[in-house]
Amino acid sequence: MDFAHDDRTSELLARVDGFIREHVDPVEGDHVRELQAQPQPWTASPLVEEWKGLAREAGLWNLFLPDEEHGAGLTNLQYAPLAERMGRSLLAPEVFNCNAPDTGNMEILLHYGNQAQHDRWLRPLLAGDIRSAFCMTEPDVASSDATNMEATAAVDGDEIVLNGRKWWSTGVGHPNCEVLIFMGVTDPDAHRYQRHSMVLVPVDAPGVTVERLLPAMGFLDAPSGHGEVSFDDVRLPLEDSVIGAPGQAFEIAQARLGPGRIHHCMRLIGLAELALELACRRAVARTAFRKPLANLGGNRERIADARIAIQQARLLVLHAAWLLDTQGLLGALSAVSQIKVAVPNMAQDVVDMAMQLHGGAGMSNDTPLAAAWTTARALRIADGPDEVHRGVVARVELGPYIEEAEGSPA
Amino acid sequence: MDFAHDDRTSELLARVDGFIREHVDPVEGDHVRELQAQPQPWTASPLVEEWKGLAREAGLWNLFLPDEEHGAGLTNLQYAPLAERMGRSLLAPEVFNCNAPDTGNMEILLHYGNQAQHDRWLRPLLAGDIRSAFCMTEPDVASSDATNMEATAAVDGDEIVLNGRKWWSTGVGHPNCEVLIFMGVTDPDAHRYQRHSMVLVPVDAPGVTVERLLPAMGFLDAPSGHGEVSFDDVRLPLEDSVIGAPGQAFEIAQARLGPGRIHHCMRLIGLAELALELACRRAVARTAFRKPLANLGGNRERIADARIAIQQARLLVLHAAWLLDTQGLLGALSAVSQIKVAVPNMAQDVVDMAMQLHGGAGMSNDTPLAAAWTTARALRIADGPDEVHRGVVARVELGPYIEEAEGSPA
Amino acid sequence: MDFAHDDRTSELLARVDGFIREHVDPVEGDHVRELQAQPQPWTASPLVEEWKGLAREAGLWNLFLPDEEHGAGLTNLQYAPLAERMGRSLLAPEVFNCNAPDTGNMEILLHYGNQAQHDRWLRPLLAGDIRSAFCMTEPDVASSDATNMEATAAVDGDEIVLNGRKWWSTGVGHPNCEVLIFMGVTDPDAHRYQRHSMVLVPVDAPGVTVERLLPAMGFLDAPSGHGEVSFDDVRLPLEDSVIGAPGQAFEIAQARLGPGRIHHCMRLIGLAELALELACRRAVARTAFRKPLANLGGNRERIADARIAIQQARLLVLHAAWLLDTQGLLGALSAVSQIKVAVPNMAQDVVDMAMQLHGGAGMSNDTPLAAAWTTARALRIADGPDEVHRGVVARVELGPYIEEAEGSPA
Amino acid sequence: MDFAHDDRTSELLARVDGFIREHVDPVEGDHVRELQAQPQPWTASPLVEEWKGLAREAGLWNLFLPDEEHGAGLTNLQYAPLAERMGRSLLAPEVFNCNAPDTGNMEILLHYGNQAQHDRWLRPLLAGDIRSAFCMTEPDVASSDATNMEATAAVDGDEIVLNGRKWWSTGVGHPNCEVLIFMGVTDPDAHRYQRHSMVLVPVDAPGVTVERLLPAMGFLDAPSGHGEVSFDDVRLPLEDSVIGAPGQAFEIAQARLGPGRIHHCMRLIGLAELALELACRRAVARTAFRKPLANLGGNRERIADARIAIQQARLLVLHAAWLLDTQGLLGALSAVSQIKVAVPNMAQDVVDMAMQLHGGAGMSNDTPLAAAWTTARALRIADGPDEVHRGVVARVELGPYIEEAEGSPA
Repeated sequence: MDFAHDDRTSELLARVDGFIREHVDPVEGDHVRELQAQPQPWTASPLVEEWKGLAREAGLWNLFLPDEEHGAGLTNLQYAPLAERMGRSLLAPEVFNCNAPDTGNMEILLHYGNQAQHDRWLRPLLAGDIRSAFCMTEPDVASSDATNMEATAAVDGDEIVLNGRKWWSTGVGHPNCEVLIFMGVTDPDAHRYQRHSMVLVPVDAPGVTVERLLPAMGFLDAPSGHGEVSFDDVRLPLEDSVIGAPGQAFEIAQARLGPGRIHHCMRLIGLAELALELACRRAVARTAFRKPLANLGGNRERIADARIAIQQARLLVLHAAWLLDTQGLLGALSAVSQIKVAVPNMAQDVVDMAMQLHGGAGMSNDTPLAAAWTTARALRIADGPDEVHRGVVARVELGPYIEEAEGSPA
Repeated sequence: MDFAHDDRTSELLARVDGFIREHVDPVEGDHVRELQAQPQPWTASPLVEEWKGLAREAGLWNLFLPDEEHGAGLTNLQYAPLAERMGRSLLAPEVFNCNAPDTGNMEILLHYGNQAQHDRWLRPLLAGDIRSAFCMTEPDVASSDATNMEATAAVDGDEIVLNGRKWWSTGVGHPNCEVLIFMGVTDPDAHRYQRHSMVLVPVDAPGVTVERLLPAMGFLDAPSGHGEVSFDDVRLPLEDSVIGAPGQAFEIAQARLGPGRIHHCMRLIGLAELALELACRRAVARTAFRKPLANLGGNRERIADARIAIQQARLLVLHAAWLLDTQGLLGALSAVSQIKVAVPNMAQDVVDMAMQLHGGAGMSNDTPLAAAWTTARALRIADGPDEVHRGVVARVELGPYIEEAEGSPA
Repeated sequence: MDFAHDDRTSELLARVDGFIREHVDPVEGDHVRELQAQPQPWTASPLVEEWKGLAREAGLWNLFLPDEEHGAGLTNLQYAPLAERMGRSLLAPEVFNCNAPDTGNMEILLHYGNQAQHDRWLRPLLAGDIRSAFCMTEPDVASSDATNMEATAAVDGDEIVLNGRKWWSTGVGHPNCEVLIFMGVTDPDAHRYQRHSMVLVPVDAPGVTVERLLPAMGFLDAPSGHGEVSFDDVRLPLEDSVIGAPGQAFEIAQARLGPGRIHHCMRLIGLAELALELACRRAVARTAFRKPLANLGGNRERIADARIAIQQARLLVLHAAWLLDTQGLLGALSAVSQIKVAVPNMAQDVVDMAMQLHGGAGMSNDTPLAAAWTTARALRIADGPDEVHRGVVARVELGPYIEEAEGSPA
Repeated sequence: MDFAHDDRTSELLARVDGFIREHVDPVEGDHVRELQAQPQPWTASPLVEEWKGLAREAGLWNLFLPDEEHGAGLTNLQYAPLAERMGRSLLAPEVFNCNAPDTGNMEILLHYGNQAQHDRWLRPLLAGDIRSAFCMTEPDVASSDATNMEATAAVDGDEIVLNGRKWWSTGVGHPNCEVLIFMGVTDPDAHRYQRHSMVLVPVDAPGVTVERLLPAMGFLDAPSGHGEVSFDDVRLPLEDSVIGAPGQAFEIAQARLGPGRIHHCMRLIGLAELALELACRRAVARTAFRKPLANLGGNRERIADARIAIQQARLLVLHAAWLLDTQGLLGALSAVSQIKVAVPNMAQDVVDMAMQLHGGAGMSNDTPLAAAWTTARALRIADGPDEVHRGVVARVELGPYIEEAEGSPA
């Protein structure tokens, strides 16, 4: 449980930080505003493509991937500070090929994909040449309860046929997005965890329609974008398309849950740190009623509370990462749900405080705060709403007492 | 302090409600999304123009204006429930010619404008033929402290010359916006409350440039829009342009403060009621884990808390309205600041709860919740940030004790 | 819904206030500390008895009782400000014979008691000669769900036999306490609202044992005291003892619920006002780091928030009182539960803030704050915990939507 | 930054835990209630004295003391889990001779006391034969600002003369308390950190009067007790009495600040864990409305939030302990203030939740919850109020930005 950066982490962190400071920071604000302003569908940013080339050359590439052959071979605990650093920037995760949902998709493909799937999809994803989306959430049912899922992935001989409507399919708006991972019911009568299949779908497959891109609290999250996608009798070759075997989707999904949430949370901590830094700078520089804001009312107390909140949240994520590394998803079940509740709420609050200190500027797009605020808010719903994760934490917490109360059979 | 609706209020409320239900409600959602999607600069909505005609014919017009000749002659307490009803809808305030900042601008012109100003600007504003903006906040200084203002309104013979840069000039994006009210320093050596002038500026006056429209937390607030406006040596005839006399801006500004904040707050209460209604409908209709959301976890408690919070906030605003009606701005000083703190925070929380119950739908523009959430958030900054209003409340609260402690002269 | 004080209320309020300022305020602090320090069982305070005589002479007596013959004949809305004023003091409610649980007990006896019960118990209670307790909550079951009640009141010919154990029987520690109202199951097979009986029990009846007095968060609430009381085959004459008829307890209990909660809440508002006053005085008088506390950190903001919270809470209670007066308990159901949630939480927070401003003094008994804090906390459990009341509010709120969703039969 | 227990810690933790489970747990509840009920001044508990003997024999003694000769030689990080374990129990800290304020007093004496002082006071303190108090806070000034201190310690030849009034002198009520450490002004004209002296005062020295014992939120904290103590011309031999040298008090005080706060916070975490365990047991065992409390309303969410809050707080304290061990007080300055804010607030909230789940039982002394709640609350004031610690955190946070803004001299 040693949370100090080891040498490898320190070295990578310094280089990632240096890269961002040199290349990204000086122009990012303007560039993001340009991307946000352009009409859909988005065109890929040549600047980001250029940075990707540089990052790849520098070996700052696929750092998220614990696999040593294809990725950096870091543990979750080692990668966490790198994710935090990237999270201070909107573009950095893509620059280092460490952006959701591609990260989770690559992990899935690496572990469960067959050779053909590796060749066709994993290789270009690892290379950063294409991007991908993940299609699980549905508009018509409460997707926090996965058994509600209505989309179907019916096996028909050596083909699989997809029908249904998905939304909040993150990444589908990206101009480089070429493949979707679709989740649907194959056998409704099987055990609840063996009903669903995960299917690779070329974005241009007949029957696939990106109906629209969804703004999240007003922001279109360019350049990635969340989409609503309909699948009408999308017919695909079974072996090329199904990941693992039909009915294996839940098992596969496990693989991306833990790390994905740790990445999200660490990036949010980076965002919260950025917000706190901006708040401090503003508090020192801006004057009202003949005093710097730092000396007015409760502003100092709020800055202190933000520091305390970030500090606690980071340690909680590092602890969850360490548990995941050492005890696997099951041993980290409560811990991962804990961070999924604690961190987005913390980040929303810290950014809200920073926005308030910025007055009108905080609401505009002149600072990254407004976008950061909605990002944090969205993550209280995405990847499982707070309520579902609190339910997991409580279930783990109450478990032993329920067992004890029920007694053991003689 | 009778908060029951009197006959006049009840009758108007029923008619406003009926009008909105008949005309606006059935199409508003789609229409707002259309308006949000159109590129800037916005074109006026023919639908809204049509509704305005109907509302005017029906006598549901200028209800906000306490003046009996030009408006409905209602007290703040009488108008409050009407504002609440309008606030449930994004478009209704404009439909009834009761939208900010025109309401405040009309009040100012009515009381302080000369005949020429009435003819040129007040008349078409009262008729809903044109719209207006209010230019006070500046990007480079903390505008919550009005003495920071840097823009100038220099008297030069029978002309007045404006220089400076303003932002968050609400309404400036509206295609019908024809006049701005500009506030700037005329005599920096005068008493701090006699330095500033308020000046009417045709939006097409030479030297006036709408530099850009500002999204507030991602939303452009079409069709009104908040703008950044520069004034470069804008030279205008003194008598036609200055409202009241040079140096009188602070006195004039008082007139719009109290009612404006009550309007904002009552509209937010309408918005919070809408959010709570949507939350209840969702809680009843949506199922997860084989139960309606209403029966899951803390959802009922949150709905209860929302009801309690709205109820308290509404009573607080009605009380402030009554104070303003009976004791004037000075007697209502703390009360108006109290609602300005309490209501936007309440509304933000209630809408946040409703969004959470809606999952992904709550983040999208498929419901009015995301926009409502950012509206509530923005009002914690607009018209004076929370911190400044808390300062006013505390000053009034501590006043007698400070006086007592300092003793009275022999 | 006119919340202004009418003439009758204003006159009584002025006299109650004058009485407390003249008699109680100057010595109350020391006297309460004396009472708190004396060993149990408490002896009655001669000072309080003396004040009671004066209050009765002055006609400031039984002000809570809406009955015009035996009480002051005030509505809940009229009585509310008087309860608030009394609530600023620990002893004042008893001084004016307006203290719980006697108030509720007198109401019950007045409406449901027979002539013999009036003569034996109501008359001396109205005269302030004796005091009473209410025995409903039980240690072994969740009493927030009244159907859990285990105590029995079995009819045996013309006798009734009580068995069971009660606790948090408020008032049982008072030296003048002579009668208990006991609630128990008479007919477990009847409709759930017709099972229970309410029985008058002389405190010295054979089989009644006050097992102990219970401190609430460390405070014994002298001189009233909460007790744990056992009832072992307590055999009483049926007609003299049962209030109303066997099985009528739930119906009778309704009578005391609404007003009792309004009284509690208004007294807590008085307590919160007292705490805010003490906080302001301290903020002005105490110096640290060369500034009065009022000018340090977030203290002013907290004072503002306290003012806003109290103001909202008071209006909410007045609104509930008005509803209760005009629409009866059913029409005020949600409103009464709303205040029962909102007010104790508000009071706990406001007092906590005041305590913090007082540093060590706030924790001691040198100010009334520590006791006030625990009083507010206790009322989040007493008379129905927050959670149960939130449940009521949510049920009323969701009701129409559930009905609508279920549709109506043709 | 390795927060896993090392072998030494694991072994000690298991033995401390075993000791408490065997000896203390089975009888503690009743015994504490007996101690709480006994009239002052308290007599020492023979049971505690017996346990102390057993603990000492077992080598579970002075575990807090980093000195290897006189104590266990543990780092703060190693001791932290032991303090947490002891904190679940009211009596355990004294049983292991690890209770405040003796711990801090022993540290001070060890490092700054001369041989005579070691012989007379340190030796019996280390042996657990006597106890001590620390007299710093004063009733008449805001003691959070130490420069306010009014008590004096005047050097007069080879004597030192003490005058002043102290309160919240923890431990002074204990029957074994034999020595006080008094802090007073020696040279008001010296640098603000060189004005004060720390003086050892036999509790029976002429001029020392324990005026009264102070309940903290109703609890007298038997058997230790907080006292108000007056010092009237207490004349003592300089060399025997002054710790270090006159004027050295601030420097000496530093030594106890960091570790003391870590101990307090870890004990509170133990208390919060105990409260959460009780909450879970209650949630599982208690039934209302035909469901266990765990399945009612928001109870599960609150249990989850409590787990998340405790987890974060513990990690934050461990981090602060590690900083203190590796970087000293200065490097841990913000971290120590962070925990001093975060942990008592967290503990108050968690215990409040547990109390609420316990209904009336939670308010009584039948569970440790009511006492725990007030303990947590008191620690938001004791050892520096929240506001002062937030000020420290903000100062450290803003420091670099202020420096940067002010620029560096050429």
